[in-house]
Amino acid sequence: MKLTQEINHSASDLKSIFETYLFEKAFEEFPYVLLQPAMQIMRMKAKRLRPILLLTACEAFGGNPETALDAASAVEIYHNFTLVHDDIIDKADIRRNESTVHKKYGINKAILAGDAMLIHAQQLINTAAASINNFDLVKTFQKTAMDVIKGEQMDVDFEDLPEVSVEDYLEMSRLKTSVLLAGSLKLGAMIGEASNADLEKIYDFGMNLGLAFQIKDDYLDSFGDQKTFGKKIGGDILQNKKTYLLCVALKKANENTKKEIFNIIEEKDSEKKINEMLAVYEKCDIKEETVKQMETFFNKSMKSLQEVSLVEKKKEHLLQLAESIYQRSF
Amino acid sequence: MKLTQEINHSASDLKSIFETYLFEKAFEEFPYVLLQPAMQIMRMKAKRLRPILLLTACEAFGGNPETALDAASAVEIYHNFTLVHDDIIDKADIRRNESTVHKKYGINKAILAGDAMLIHAQQLINTAAASINNFDLVKTFQKTAMDVIKGEQMDVDFEDLPEVSVEDYLEMSRLKTSVLLAGSLKLGAMIGEASNADLEKIYDFGMNLGLAFQIKDDYLDSFGDQKTFGKKIGGDILQNKKTYLLCVALKKANENTKKEIFNIIEEKDSEKKINEMLAVYEKCDIKEETVKQMETFFNKSMKSLQEVSLVEKKKEHLLQLAESIYQRSF
Repeated sequence: MKLTQEINHSASDLKSIFETYLFEKAFEEFPYVLLQPAMQIMRMKAKRLRPILLLTACEAFGGNPETALDAASAVEIYHNFTLVHDDIIDKADIRRNESTVHKKYGINKAILAGDAMLIHAQQLINTAAASINNFDLVKTFQKTAMDVIKGEQMDVDFEDLPEVSVEDYLEMSRLKTSVLLAGSLKLGAMIGEASNADLEKIYDFGMNLGLAFQIKDDYLDSFGDQKTFGKKIGGDILQNKKTYLLCVALKKANENTKKEIFNIIEEKDSEKKINEMLAVYEKCDIKEETVKQMETFFNKSMKSLQEVSLVEKKKEHLLQLAESIYQRSF
Repeated sequence: MKLTQEINHSASDLKSIFETYLFEKAFEEFPYVLLQPAMQIMRMKAKRLRPILLLTACEAFGGNPETALDAASAVEIYHNFTLVHDDIIDKADIRRNESTVHKKYGINKAILAGDAMLIHAQQLINTAAASINNFDLVKTFQKTAMDVIKGEQMDVDFEDLPEVSVEDYLEMSRLKTSVLLAGSLKLGAMIGEASNADLEKIYDFGMNLGLAFQIKDDYLDSFGDQKTFGKKIGGDILQNKKTYLLCVALKKANENTKKEIFNIIEEKDSEKKINEMLAVYEKCDIKEETVKQMETFFNKSMKSLQEVSLVEKKKEHLLQLAESIYQRSF
């Protein structure tokens, strides 16, 4: 399919155009000796959320998504690189019902394949930047990439801390998850030649959407409907994960409740552990506070999108994307 | 010290200027959460060969080395990133009498610190490229960076192969070691605004120098003078490393000698193993052939330097550097 500027592509159109490019073009110059391990993760069924955001933003500002396919490949390959190294760090053997790269090819090959993917992502963004003579595209990508690594390191550090402040939690979540959504949107808008004011707005739109999404993810893990959530309720509690809920609970708790929480963290009986933590959350009104916070971020996200200087019709696809991401229907 | 174009700096001048910049400026925007592990390796005593080559090439072509300090930092930080991930892969606990990054900070932090260093190196090269509006600087850096990873993967793969061809050995050595020397020289020459023809020559100069250096390294490990070589003679033989010597020996050997070599590879007694392999090398004239090959590469390197269109005086420092690298006095 040849893209033309007249057409406003749906997310599923863009996904199919993107995946064709990703597999037929984007890896043409990737080192053969590391192609198999890279493909082990790239070929897994995936939503391609970041490239779709990038291409949608590009088109919203009047750019031709075809000119943004290298940049879209860069963010997707970068994202997958983080998963390859993260799976080593988390000792995760399975991802989407398949072997992770290090499980299948060993840690050494997974480290080097990740390194090659990180370099390749930058090669693609450099190609994209050179074609429009805009060094800021590379700079924005690199800042985003570095923020994600920083967020991952914070997340790793959190595991060894007894307590994490709500501010630190939000900063980690901003860096680890939200900046790459925001950065993808900004890169697409840059290729679409958006104004600096709009670049800021579109970035804030993605950032707040990411935070709303992440907090809702934490919320659903404790209070979701197991059927629609897809994962077992209470997984975060069992893993003693520093979720938004736990950080707020520790902040609000008095000395006694704090002791109670630390006891629950030591609890070995799974069902008892989950029920006791949910009871603490109930007592501290965590459910209401979390809903309020995620709605606040989502509303901020919507406000930023409203402030983007495009006619409503041009924003339609971005709005639909945001809603389906937040509603978990993407 | 303020650099001016009139002065032709010695390698040790450039080293000191470079290290000042590296520690006072280059890490200013590096993520604080990963600064300690990155510094664990960056602060180790080092020759700074690659940045010195880069700065010397820049100055030879009339560039001001001060304008090349970001690029010089990029190649040095990139080189150190490869060491961080390589030490994990090689399970090496000690480097230059100090703990390696993963030994001191754990594998997880070492993976992420390496990733951050790889991104940071690219941020620095992008800054350098943007300041002279030359996307090719980033492209050259990235191609070089990717080649090195490819070479590392080949090296890892070699460990599991019974036999490696001389061609594959040379390709691995070209990628793993030589391209970064060649790439550093080329980047410096690009900043010094060398012509395309000279960029090719300076690249070939570095490439052949790197190959000469690597083959000599293999040679010295078997035939060197233990006092001046610094390492114990025969280390490569004990580790069954696919050196230039072993690859040539396997190529030249008849069926019986080949069997003999594979038996030596299985030998457990260290002294016996070394002596028997040296005897095979003697029988197959490996010593002479290796000397011939390393001299061929060194002469090619010198020829490429001669062909660079600069007056002899401007090439003096590059020539001195090449000789001291080859003579192991750098």
